[in-house]
Amino acid sequence: MLNGNLIDLNDLPISEWNRIIALAQEIIKRPELYSEKCYGKILATLFYEPSTRTQMSFQTAMLKLGGRIIGFDDPQNSSVSKGESLKDTITIVSNYADMIVLRHPNEGAARAASLYASCPVINAGDGGHLHPSQTLTDLLTLSVEKGRLTDLVVGICGDLVNGRTVHSLIKALSCYRGNSFVLISTPNLRVPSYIKDIMSAAGCPFTEVDSLSEAIPMLDVLYMTRIQRERFTSEEEYLREKDVYRLDREKLMSARSDLRILHPLPRVDEIAIEVDDDPRAAYFRQASYGVYARMALLIRLTTPPEYPVAEPAPKQPLPHHCENPRCITQKEGYLPGLFTSGGDMLVCDYCDSRLLI
Amino acid sequence: MLNGNLIDLNDLPISEWNRIIALAQEIIKRPELYSEKCYGKILATLFYEPSTRTQMSFQTAMLKLGGRIIGFDDPQNSSVSKGESLKDTITIVSNYADMIVLRHPNEGAARAASLYASCPVINAGDGGHLHPSQTLTDLLTLSVEKGRLTDLVVGICGDLVNGRTVHSLIKALSCYRGNSFVLISTPNLRVPSYIKDIMSAAGCPFTEVDSLSEAIPMLDVLYMTRIQRERFTSEEEYLREKDVYRLDREKLMSARSDLRILHPLPRVDEIAIEVDDDPRAAYFRQASYGVYARMALLIRLTTPPEYPVAEPAPKQPLPHHCENPRCITQKEGYLPGLFTSGGDMLVCDYCDSRLLI
Amino acid sequence: MLNGNLIDLNDLPISEWNRIIALAQEIIKRPELYSEKCYGKILATLFYEPSTRTQMSFQTAMLKLGGRIIGFDDPQNSSVSKGESLKDTITIVSNYADMIVLRHPNEGAARAASLYASCPVINAGDGGHLHPSQTLTDLLTLSVEKGRLTDLVVGICGDLVNGRTVHSLIKALSCYRGNSFVLISTPNLRVPSYIKDIMSAAGCPFTEVDSLSEAIPMLDVLYMTRIQRERFTSEEEYLREKDVYRLDREKLMSARSDLRILHPLPRVDEIAIEVDDDPRAAYFRQASYGVYARMALLIRLTTPPEYPVAEPAPKQPLPHHCENPRCITQKEGYLPGLFTSGGDMLVCDYCDSRLLI
Repeated sequence: MLNGNLIDLNDLPISEWNRIIALAQEIIKRPELYSEKCYGKILATLFYEPSTRTQMSFQTAMLKLGGRIIGFDDPQNSSVSKGESLKDTITIVSNYADMIVLRHPNEGAARAASLYASCPVINAGDGGHLHPSQTLTDLLTLSVEKGRLTDLVVGICGDLVNGRTVHSLIKALSCYRGNSFVLISTPNLRVPSYIKDIMSAAGCPFTEVDSLSEAIPMLDVLYMTRIQRERFTSEEEYLREKDVYRLDREKLMSARSDLRILHPLPRVDEIAIEVDDDPRAAYFRQASYGVYARMALLIRLTTPPEYPVAEPAPKQPLPHHCENPRCITQKEGYLPGLFTSGGDMLVCDYCDSRLLI
Repeated sequence: MLNGNLIDLNDLPISEWNRIIALAQEIIKRPELYSEKCYGKILATLFYEPSTRTQMSFQTAMLKLGGRIIGFDDPQNSSVSKGESLKDTITIVSNYADMIVLRHPNEGAARAASLYASCPVINAGDGGHLHPSQTLTDLLTLSVEKGRLTDLVVGICGDLVNGRTVHSLIKALSCYRGNSFVLISTPNLRVPSYIKDIMSAAGCPFTEVDSLSEAIPMLDVLYMTRIQRERFTSEEEYLREKDVYRLDREKLMSARSDLRILHPLPRVDEIAIEVDDDPRAAYFRQASYGVYARMALLIRLTTPPEYPVAEPAPKQPLPHHCENPRCITQKEGYLPGLFTSGGDMLVCDYCDSRLLI
Repeated sequence: MLNGNLIDLNDLPISEWNRIIALAQEIIKRPELYSEKCYGKILATLFYEPSTRTQMSFQTAMLKLGGRIIGFDDPQNSSVSKGESLKDTITIVSNYADMIVLRHPNEGAARAASLYASCPVINAGDGGHLHPSQTLTDLLTLSVEKGRLTDLVVGICGDLVNGRTVHSLIKALSCYRGNSFVLISTPNLRVPSYIKDIMSAAGCPFTEVDSLSEAIPMLDVLYMTRIQRERFTSEEEYLREKDVYRLDREKLMSARSDLRILHPLPRVDEIAIEVDDDPRAAYFRQASYGVYARMALLIRLTTPPEYPVAEPAPKQPLPHHCENPRCITQKEGYLPGLFTSGGDMLVCDYCDSRLLI
């Protein structure tokens, strides 16, 4: 069991990921068996920034399990999010609800919330940091569409330097054997070096390439993401390059017949609409799997553990401050300084950024 | 059965209108028989412009059938409605929900949505174009309050040139025998000529008059609507005319005792508050009937058809563009050009506007 | 039974308060016995100004009773609250729902709504006037935490001149025997004289003091509230005084071990975070009790009365106008002038303000 929260997928053992994915596949087959699993339970969806799709996905998941929903989605309009500390809101709402789904613009907000919640907290996005239910969705999609999470040649295309979902997916797939990566982007949008370290440490081969067309024929999976216009170094580069990273029917002609195309959505124009009808386009099905992944997650979080779960010993706060300006500790000053020591570095337990000491 | 959608009431045979109205009357009598009819089902209310009353009416209908609700009501705040195509949102949400209720500022949006939805779509208003559940509500109100939909002298008062509900009601009542219309408005707010053509073709007598007071004694039904101040040609005309089209207790003195007064609401001051307590004032009951009309509609849309329904053959897109600036095809450029040919005209399948070819 | 509404706690006999509090305590003990008490019922939460916490508390209460929810929370975005009279909205929504919870910026709005509603109306705050479910929450909190509502020395600290919850609590506790009050504030933020009259008439001793530190040792209960910065007469006074009225661990050292600290929340910094872990800090538990108080209230409002309830005779409107600019009658001009006469005064039935005649 999940020991109460899902903040970072890496808090859980791989065996638990597999359990959630297997449970989601069971639900897809026989949803009627699960339609009352959360009967009488309340899910609070606290969205400090709007993300209608994620919120609707969680709400649908809870409703399909027979549960009910409270929450807010409008930070401007909410008295909860104005003037009140995250601690107070979480303390109170966790007494109203059986589970909290939190979306927050600050990195580490979900970890902070979990310190005060008397119910499980699910991280539905904390700034650009983590979004574990998206990664579970991606893994479930591959499990269903490819039949396996191993021995896949995975192309990832778009903005690889800023992409939260991309980093999480690479980290997750590196935990399964036999996977390799083809990283497709402009030179200035390559994955950060710590992601390369993870692939290397896991023994996953990877290559970095500039051309989607050239990469496509060898792929089992193509994970498309959006490149925001402002990520290009100049308007000229944008105009020159944008079609290189746009998937259309022509580029697909050289692809394998069992390729599967994923996208975390929303897409703008990085996938041509003509691709939607191709059976290899899995991104809309992926959105549907997202509901099942979240149903499985909600069930696991409300199921008593099958084995004793050791409560982690509370950590001793340190007299340091995280220097990441987007870290939740910068906004909510009462939060204890919690760090994991790594050589001459401290890693912030909230936002994972590093502090030299 | 409704073959999946309710975009335009005229897509359905009159027999289906009667079925919905009859079912609604059954529900009014014995609501407890229907309280679980949509148990376990999810209705998505996607409101791209706010219409709290319509949204609450559909939500209440679904809840009274035991179903559940997801959706959004705040276009500014919704990431779904920002940047994402209607196609993508509908494709995804129709996999979450069992039915979609769509409100959209662009004409033809519901028809466009139905091209991509894998679940039934209900048009809850597409710009100034159609709003079929309001017309079903009006028909149910007359059925209950007058006991019939035939042989009625129906007065319609207010802005008859721009009134969407007025046009739909005239079209609908023209399908029943023996009805006649008294059209009460200023000369520049008369019904458009195509509406007169419909009444004439159906053999429904109609007269156009200026005075509510003079018209009132002969009416079985008075359908009041609002005239927006800016519809008058001048401030002087407004001040001179506004009381002419305002219903008050005095004007009602000459009315029949079995007159019924309807209004789609919200009213502003076109009906004096003193009229509310008159038993002939049916507009608040009409709002209640609206919930039952929608309950019947939701049941019909989720009931398997009793007879085989022929899927219409997909239409061949034409290389023309609708010229109506409010048409959804102007906003969502990927939509195929779908038209019905009529002589030297094409009629846009989305917004019903005409294109010369 | 409540005879349909909860507008002002003083509309109910004390025996009914005690019943609600006793029922809430039963629910706390065995919530599963009440989980279907409102099955099939619909609660409308009509929030004409945002109050996320109150709305979530009522929603949670209704969901825990098996009921369902419609409503709005965004006055800017709601077509219901724009242009439509309160009368029309209430008339319609009370036909959709089984109960209405109303929050409104104008004083007397809930009383006005109750004139037109065909279902029970609960006042969830009408401007600075009344908020009876908060007072029920406070009474339940004291019942559980102190085991009694009598013979309590109650300290109340903060802005005592403007505090709606403070006035209601004093009025309520004055109805139980043996209570006394220690009123802690700056001289210009003392309770109004009519509140002193109530305490005197009830035989409740009270003292007015400047210092929280000096008052604390004698208290059974400390009810903290916020002093808004702008309530101080000058910036110098604010800087000099703000710590005097801030509760921290040091001030608590001289307090009794069975003191209980309450706060209506949200708190800003009038209670130091270090106090949260003190077992005497009851304010987060108080928020939880609020859900149970509201569950009990919803049950009582939907339970048929055990004894015949005499409908009050309808009052004769008077040709006077309330002069309180925040009174709902100033905004909704059709409301009848309803007053209770008191000597040479009339007391407005909506907002309780006095009119010389």
